Amino acid sequence: MAKVNVSLPQGTRDFGAEVVRKRNYIFSTIKSVFEVYGFEPLETPAMENLDTLMGKYGEEGDKLIFKILNNGEYLNGLRPEDFFGIALGSLKNIPTTEEVYLSTEDFKKKYSRITNHVSSRALKYDLTIPFARYVAMNHHQLTMPFKRYQVQPVWRADRPQKGRYREFYQCDADVVGSKSLLNEVELTNIYATVFSKLGVSVDIKINSRKILAALAEICGGADKMVDITIAIDKLDKIGIEKVKEELAQRGLNTEQISIIENYLNITGSNEEKLAAIKQLLSSNETGAKGIEEIETVYRQSGISNLQFDFTLARGLNYYTGVIFEVKANNVQMGSIGGGGRYDDLTGLFGVPNIPGVGISFGVDRIYDVMEELQLFPASVHTGTKILFFNLGDAESKKAFELMQALRSKGVAAELYHENSKFDKQFKYAEKKQIPFIVIIGTKELESSSCNVKELATGQQETCNFDDLLKKFIS
Amino acid sequence: MAKVNVSLPQGTRDFGAEVVRKRNYIFSTIKSVFEVYGFEPLETPAMENLDTLMGKYGEEGDKLIFKILNNGEYLNGLRPEDFFGIALGSLKNIPTTEEVYLSTEDFKKKYSRITNHVSSRALKYDLTIPFARYVAMNHHQLTMPFKRYQVQPVWRADRPQKGRYREFYQCDADVVGSKSLLNEVELTNIYATVFSKLGVSVDIKINSRKILAALAEICGGADKMVDITIAIDKLDKIGIEKVKEELAQRGLNTEQISIIENYLNITGSNEEKLAAIKQLLSSNETGAKGIEEIETVYRQSGISNLQFDFTLARGLNYYTGVIFEVKANNVQMGSIGGGGRYDDLTGLFGVPNIPGVGISFGVDRIYDVMEELQLFPASVHTGTKILFFNLGDAESKKAFELMQALRSKGVAAELYHENSKFDKQFKYAEKKQIPFIVIIGTKELESSSCNVKELATGQQETCNFDDLLKKFIS
Repeated sequence: MAKVNVSLPQGTRDFGAEVVRKRNYIFSTIKSVFEVYGFEPLETPAMENLDTLMGKYGEEGDKLIFKILNNGEYLNGLRPEDFFGIALGSLKNIPTTEEVYLSTEDFKKKYSRITNHVSSRALKYDLTIPFARYVAMNHHQLTMPFKRYQVQPVWRADRPQKGRYREFYQCDADVVGSKSLLNEVELTNIYATVFSKLGVSVDIKINSRKILAALAEICGGADKMVDITIAIDKLDKIGIEKVKEELAQRGLNTEQISIIENYLNITGSNEEKLAAIKQLLSSNETGAKGIEEIETVYRQSGISNLQFDFTLARGLNYYTGVIFEVKANNVQMGSIGGGGRYDDLTGLFGVPNIPGVGISFGVDRIYDVMEELQLFPASVHTGTKILFFNLGDAESKKAFELMQALRSKGVAAELYHENSKFDKQFKYAEKKQIPFIVIIGTKELESSSCNVKELATGQQETCNFDDLLKKFIS
Repeated sequence: MAKVNVSLPQGTRDFGAEVVRKRNYIFSTIKSVFEVYGFEPLETPAMENLDTLMGKYGEEGDKLIFKILNNGEYLNGLRPEDFFGIALGSLKNIPTTEEVYLSTEDFKKKYSRITNHVSSRALKYDLTIPFARYVAMNHHQLTMPFKRYQVQPVWRADRPQKGRYREFYQCDADVVGSKSLLNEVELTNIYATVFSKLGVSVDIKINSRKILAALAEICGGADKMVDITIAIDKLDKIGIEKVKEELAQRGLNTEQISIIENYLNITGSNEEKLAAIKQLLSSNETGAKGIEEIETVYRQSGISNLQFDFTLARGLNYYTGVIFEVKANNVQMGSIGGGGRYDDLTGLFGVPNIPGVGISFGVDRIYDVMEELQLFPASVHTGTKILFFNLGDAESKKAFELMQALRSKGVAAELYHENSKFDKQFKYAEKKQIPFIVIIGTKELESSSCNVKELATGQQETCNFDDLLKKFIS
């Protein structure tokens, strides 16, 4: 037999039983809260048309999209000149090596045409663009505002590293077709409720893109927004002095940098921060609007761990209003949730004017936080409860009958698969962490009884068959 | 804005809320039975290394595997002669068009090398091979017998048609590391329990590959097995006379065809069939063993809808012992489940001697059967239960407070997102099939009461806030 490469693709994982159960505990907690808030499930396929995804995540994103090779003769229609420097079918001279092999630069330019020829589908990169595609395709039938949640894997060809995978789950809730801030209020409540149910202590940070826009307007114009947010985003990592240096390099003058420093220095309670930000930015129309938004969300949501964080920027994405981010306390970990309001989700797909707001849960990170802080409840383990020993044909026939009675009432039970040595059967129970074993040997069969042993305590009792059923059927 | 292609890849589907709920009802029913039988969940990634999958499903299967294009400069290292008929770097003469462009046949031969160069990963085609890969990688740590279930999507580049999709779920349970027939007994019980819980009337058919092998041995040798099973597989479609013609074409003589006809003519109750098959095949050692196996499963499983079906062959796959197939009654539909025993699951991955047995549920077909026979219970619909109307700031503030109290007790509720016309809010409730609306207007707010209306009956009542909570919190 040829040597076989038995491995997993880089950046992907198998999940065994215990991990699946813990992950499902997180998923079902989140889903149950989504449902209670009136969100409905949606599932979209793993693959989308390539042109649905390309160009939506920036040039870097396009590179990280997993493209699927067309089936069949995917090269048909491509000609030598698509790959190489020269059209070969009508040569007048012997081509030189230089003519045949393109320069790296020229070759790169050809990639996009070749990729589009050999691939017309790709794995989804996030849940937002497929959702936008779904809304664009179905908006006439959807009841607006449309509240959907979606819990599915996505794929990115990122360099794998600790905590970053090529296949991972996203867990999103979005409302589209409504500009009401009630949605933001509800989404912050969903964050608070989910993390409270999971037992994870968090801070829910909010800001508004309008506040950042106002800061930019005051500091030299709207075109400065990107420079300012990029610099601000680094505050945690590099500190205020380096941020100021970077702002200077990006062309901001002393006065402007001083305004930004005042902005970044806003601290204190939410009320104190609100007073300070009003003083700084409420003369600007956009700023006043942004401040009003976050104040409304703060006052209406009634959540104690909601915090204004004016350094929050959420990268260079499509958000236009309130933005959210969730950080876990007592543990070193990036944000475990984020989201915000966008003005026009489906415009990319030819259906303009559908505003929305959404949040996302970072399930892999939440899992890591809960493992580190040991927050998974013992009840997450739900394996087999009872192992019946197999001690012969007649004995196991009786065991099977009792086991089926228990299973029919929802009690997870197993009968050891063969009449092996006592020890071997015992080890099976231990390894699978089965809490109870039931022994029916010749003696027990004769007296219509069985021996029940609890492995954790070593406690044993002998009981008749009826009592066995009663013991485990609640 | 450029025209945008807003569509889904052929053969893939979006699942809206109602469909997701119905599918989850099937999934959770199956999973709960798997769990009660001591099976544990496993999840493997969507993608596997290409060489893990290639060559495992036959030549046709290889073509239907979705390959993933490598990221980055995936063409690097390929040379003109890999694509075309000629090495271009060292030409002595001007090549002719014929030299440049390969014949179709020659070009096809190049595909496999090119594919392996541009793709090193693929989407999984079934759950069995990834499971085998997982067992091969982890067999030292696994507790044997290892009982796992797996419910995940798989992808096949089949031509899409009614009921056949390019992305669909498989739902498998397998036991590996045990030769005991107790596993077959349990798996038939899992089938019976799941379909009973779903309310789907089915026949569970069993046969043994050993019985088919014995028939082949009696009819001219083991090498006739493929010919015989291919012909037998068509019995339902083409009838006995055509099957006989085909057998003759495949080189079987009159006497052999007569034995096969006798075999196919076995009918009656299970006991009658058992007597007849024993008469025909028990003189053959393999046949006697196969008959003993299915008799044991039949006697021990205690299932009324288990049927011997000697025409059952389960295609040309790796099964070696008992085989299963499930057919729904009262509806035109192919098999909705199947499986069987295999001798050596992981040998392909360098770990021999791990036998096993498994079953699979065809979830898409089960869904279609349940839709056609209207078997989904009304309780599958679990959307929002109460819509609070939004009738102003003070009114909606109170509504929000009451809604949060209900949500905290698990009651799914919504507050309409804005203070719109009564009619608009009413329509939202109707479209989303929300059964109750709660109205708190100025009058109600003053008297600390609310108006509750049940949409299905039109019944209305006025109650105070405490009674509202009591009404919906059980």
